Amino acid sequence: MSLSAKLARFIVDTKYEDLPHDVVEFTKLCILDWLSSAIAGSVKPSVQMVDQLAKELGGFEQATLVTGGRTSVANAALVNGAASHVVELDDIHKGSIIHAATVVVPAALAVAEWMGKSGKDLITAVAVGYDVCFRIGEAVSPSHYYYWHNTATCGTFGSAAAVAKLLELDEKQIVHALGNAGTQAAGLWEFIVDGAMSKQLHTAKAAMNGLLASLLAQKGFTGPSKILEGDRGFFKAMSESYDETRITNGLGERFKITENSFKIHASCRHTHPAVDLIIRAKKEHSLQPSDIRKIHVGGYQSVINITDNPNPQTVYAAKFSLQYCVSLALVKGKAGLPDFTEESLWDPEIRSLIPKVELTLDSAVNDAYPEKWGSVVEIETQDGKRIQLSTEYPKGDPEHPVTADDLVAKFRELAAELSEEQINRYVETVLSLEKVESAADFWKAATLV
Amino acid sequence: MSLSAKLARFIVDTKYEDLPHDVVEFTKLCILDWLSSAIAGSVKPSVQMVDQLAKELGGFEQATLVTGGRTSVANAALVNGAASHVVELDDIHKGSIIHAATVVVPAALAVAEWMGKSGKDLITAVAVGYDVCFRIGEAVSPSHYYYWHNTATCGTFGSAAAVAKLLELDEKQIVHALGNAGTQAAGLWEFIVDGAMSKQLHTAKAAMNGLLASLLAQKGFTGPSKILEGDRGFFKAMSESYDETRITNGLGERFKITENSFKIHASCRHTHPAVDLIIRAKKEHSLQPSDIRKIHVGGYQSVINITDNPNPQTVYAAKFSLQYCVSLALVKGKAGLPDFTEESLWDPEIRSLIPKVELTLDSAVNDAYPEKWGSVVEIETQDGKRIQLSTEYPKGDPEHPVTADDLVAKFRELAAELSEEQINRYVETVLSLEKVESAADFWKAATLV
Repeated sequence: MSLSAKLARFIVDTKYEDLPHDVVEFTKLCILDWLSSAIAGSVKPSVQMVDQLAKELGGFEQATLVTGGRTSVANAALVNGAASHVVELDDIHKGSIIHAATVVVPAALAVAEWMGKSGKDLITAVAVGYDVCFRIGEAVSPSHYYYWHNTATCGTFGSAAAVAKLLELDEKQIVHALGNAGTQAAGLWEFIVDGAMSKQLHTAKAAMNGLLASLLAQKGFTGPSKILEGDRGFFKAMSESYDETRITNGLGERFKITENSFKIHASCRHTHPAVDLIIRAKKEHSLQPSDIRKIHVGGYQSVINITDNPNPQTVYAAKFSLQYCVSLALVKGKAGLPDFTEESLWDPEIRSLIPKVELTLDSAVNDAYPEKWGSVVEIETQDGKRIQLSTEYPKGDPEHPVTADDLVAKFRELAAELSEEQINRYVETVLSLEKVESAADFWKAATLV
Repeated sequence: MSLSAKLARFIVDTKYEDLPHDVVEFTKLCILDWLSSAIAGSVKPSVQMVDQLAKELGGFEQATLVTGGRTSVANAALVNGAASHVVELDDIHKGSIIHAATVVVPAALAVAEWMGKSGKDLITAVAVGYDVCFRIGEAVSPSHYYYWHNTATCGTFGSAAAVAKLLELDEKQIVHALGNAGTQAAGLWEFIVDGAMSKQLHTAKAAMNGLLASLLAQKGFTGPSKILEGDRGFFKAMSESYDETRITNGLGERFKITENSFKIHASCRHTHPAVDLIIRAKKEHSLQPSDIRKIHVGGYQSVINITDNPNPQTVYAAKFSLQYCVSLALVKGKAGLPDFTEESLWDPEIRSLIPKVELTLDSAVNDAYPEKWGSVVEIETQDGKRIQLSTEYPKGDPEHPVTADDLVAKFRELAAELSEEQINRYVETVLSLEKVESAADFWKAATLV
C-alpha cells in the first residue's frame, strides 16, 4: 500500500463518532481561532485584492466570503484562505511548521456550506485535514522548509483531505485527490525578502488547489498513486531528507490536531518565544527602553532564516523582524494586532532599540527544534545587570496552553468591528458546532446587525 | 536590476510593430497548431472532467471554452489549457523542454477575448509569453526537468507574461506578476508512472495561475522581486544548477518563439527522433515486423527517464513508451493520432515487437542534448542485416521544419469532426490574425454549423 493509500483509508475510516471528546472540543477551538483571523484579515489590502479578483471572475453562489457575498466554493476557499493568514495570528503546528487553519478550514467550510453538511461533518473533515497535512509536514521537516512554505505546500494535501471527506470520496478517489494535491503544491519563501503579499496567495491557493483536486477526483480524474514517496514525487523533489514513518505512526490512533498551537502575538511564530521572554522580563524587572544596553537572542536556524531583519520597511515586514518584535515588546509590554501600526513601525523609541538587539544561532535551542520552538535571551542593562531567561515553548503551545476563554477573548479583540450580537452568535455557533445541522448556518451571524 | 525587472522591461517595450515579419507569421502558426490540439483534446475524458468542474463552479461569461460555452477567464484558461495538451500533439521547444502553446495561448486568448483586444495584441502577447517561459526553461535545463514538468512550472511565467502584456501592466506590476507566477509554479513528474491525468491538470493550472498572478498585479498585489535568482527563489529551490545568462542573452533582439518545434507524431516528443528513423527505415528497406530480430535505440537521458516503459497499460501511457512507439511505427509506418487506440494498444503484432526493442543511453546523443534531441537506431533483421540510422533533430524542429501547409493539414486531421466551413473559417481567421479587430472573433467559427 502506498502512503497515499494509507492516508486514504484513514480518511474514509474516520467517523465523527470515533473522535475523542477532547479532539472534538479542540477542533472547535481551531475553527473559532480561524474565524478570528479571517474576520480581522478580511479588510486588509491584499485580501481585498483577492476578493476583487473573485468578484471579477464570478461563480455560482455556493459559499460565503468572509469579505462579504457568496461565490463558488473555489473562489470562497481562495478569498477566505487569504483572509485568515494576513494578520499572522492564525494557529501553527510546530512539528510540521504548518498553519493548518488558514488552508484546511476555508476549503472544508466552503464545501460543507455548499453541500449542507452538518457541523459534525465539518468537525470531522477539519480534524482529518489537519492530521494529513501535519503528518506530511513532519515527514519533510525541517529541510523542506528552507525553500518551501509548508503551510502552502503541505497544506494543499490537508485541504484535499478535508474536502475528500466531505465529498465522501472512496479510497481510490482520495489517492487521486492527494496525488493531484501534491502535484499542485507550491509556495517559495522568496517573497519574504520583499515582505510581499505572496504569503496570502500561498494559503489562498493551497486551500483552492486542494479543493480542486478533490472535486476533480470525484469526477474520475486520476493522479499519481505515490505522490509522496515516488521517485519523482513530493519527498524527493522538495526536501533534502524525509521520514516516511511520520505519515503512518499512530495514524488513526492519535489525532494530531491537538498538537496545534495558538498565537497570541500578532507576529511570525518564530518571534514568539523571544517576545514572551521580553514581556516577562519587562514585567518582572520593570524594564524601560532607556534601561537597555544590549539584548541578545539565541534562536534556532529558522528564526535566523525567516526573521533576521533589523530594518523592516512595512508593518507586514515588521511582523517578520525578530529585532523589531523584541524592541516593540520591550516598549509596549505586548505585541498584539493593535500594536503593529504604521506609527509603531517608525516609532523612534522602538527604532532606537533595534540596533541593540543581537540575534545568533543557539545550538542547544536549534538541536531541540522543531519539537521545541525555544529561545534564550540575555538582557544587559545600562547599569551592568544581566537578566537571563529561556523557554522551550511559546505561549499557546500545547505544553504552554491557552484556554477556551483566552481564544474567545482573542476573537472579541480581532472581531471588534462586529456587533456584540454578531460576536456572541459566532462564538455560540462555533463552540456548539456539533449541534449545527447545516454548515450553511455557520455564517448566519454575518446577516445580523 | 533583477532578472524579473529585465523581463518586465522587455514585456513593456515589445510592440507589435517591432516584431519581425517571420515572428508574426510563425506566431500565427503556433496559435493554429495550438487550436488543432485543443479541438482534438476537447472531447477526451480528462478534459471533459475539467470542463465539468468549471461548469460546476460557474463564472462570468468572459471567454470561450473549446469544449463549448463561455465562462470566466480563469476557468477558460483552465479548461483550454487542459484540452490542448492531452493528445500530445502540441508544440515543444527543445532548449527549454516546454510546450508553450498549451499554457500561453489559453491564458492570452481568454484575456484578449474578454477585453476585446486586437489580433495584433494577441500575437504580441503570445510571442512575449513564449519568449519569457523559453528563457526561464533554458536557464534551469536540464536539471530542473528531472522532477519538474517544465511546461507547467516555467509555463506559469509565460502565461503571466502574456496576460500582463494584454493588461498593459507597467514594469513594477509585471515584476510582481512574475514573482507570484513563480511562487505558484508546480507540477511533478511522478504522475507519469501511473499515466495519470495530472499532466493536463499541470497545463490547465499553469495557464490559470499565471493569469491570476497578472490579474492580481493589476490590482496592486505584490510579489517577490527576485523570484528567479533570489536565495529562496525558483532557480535555487527547483534546479541543481542554472544559468542566469539564458534569461537575458539576446532579450528583445531574438524572439525565441521561432525556435519552437511542431509535432507530427501523437506521442511524447522524446520518442520522435527514434520514431522518425524507424519510419524512414521501414520505407527505405520495406521492413515488415516479421523481419525484425532486434531494434536498438540510443537516446539521451530524458528519453530513458520519461519513456522507458516496455509494458504500457493505457493508450495514454503508450504515448510515453519508447518501446511501444517504435513498435507501432514499425508496424504502421506512422504514429499519428488515429494510430493510438485501445485496439492498437493490445495489437499482438505490436506487442510481439516490444521485447525486441532495447533502449540505452547514448553518450554522444546525450552530450548534445538539450540543444539537439537526437537518436541513433540500429535495426538487426532476421537475415542478419544491420541497418544504422541517426538523426540530430526530430521532424518539426526548426532545423527539420514543417510548412504552414503541413500544419493546416494537421489542423484538418485533428479537427476532422468539424464542418468544412468551420475548418476553413478557423484557418482563415488564425492565418490572418493580424487583421482581426477583436479577439472575440477568434471563436466565430464555433458558431457555424
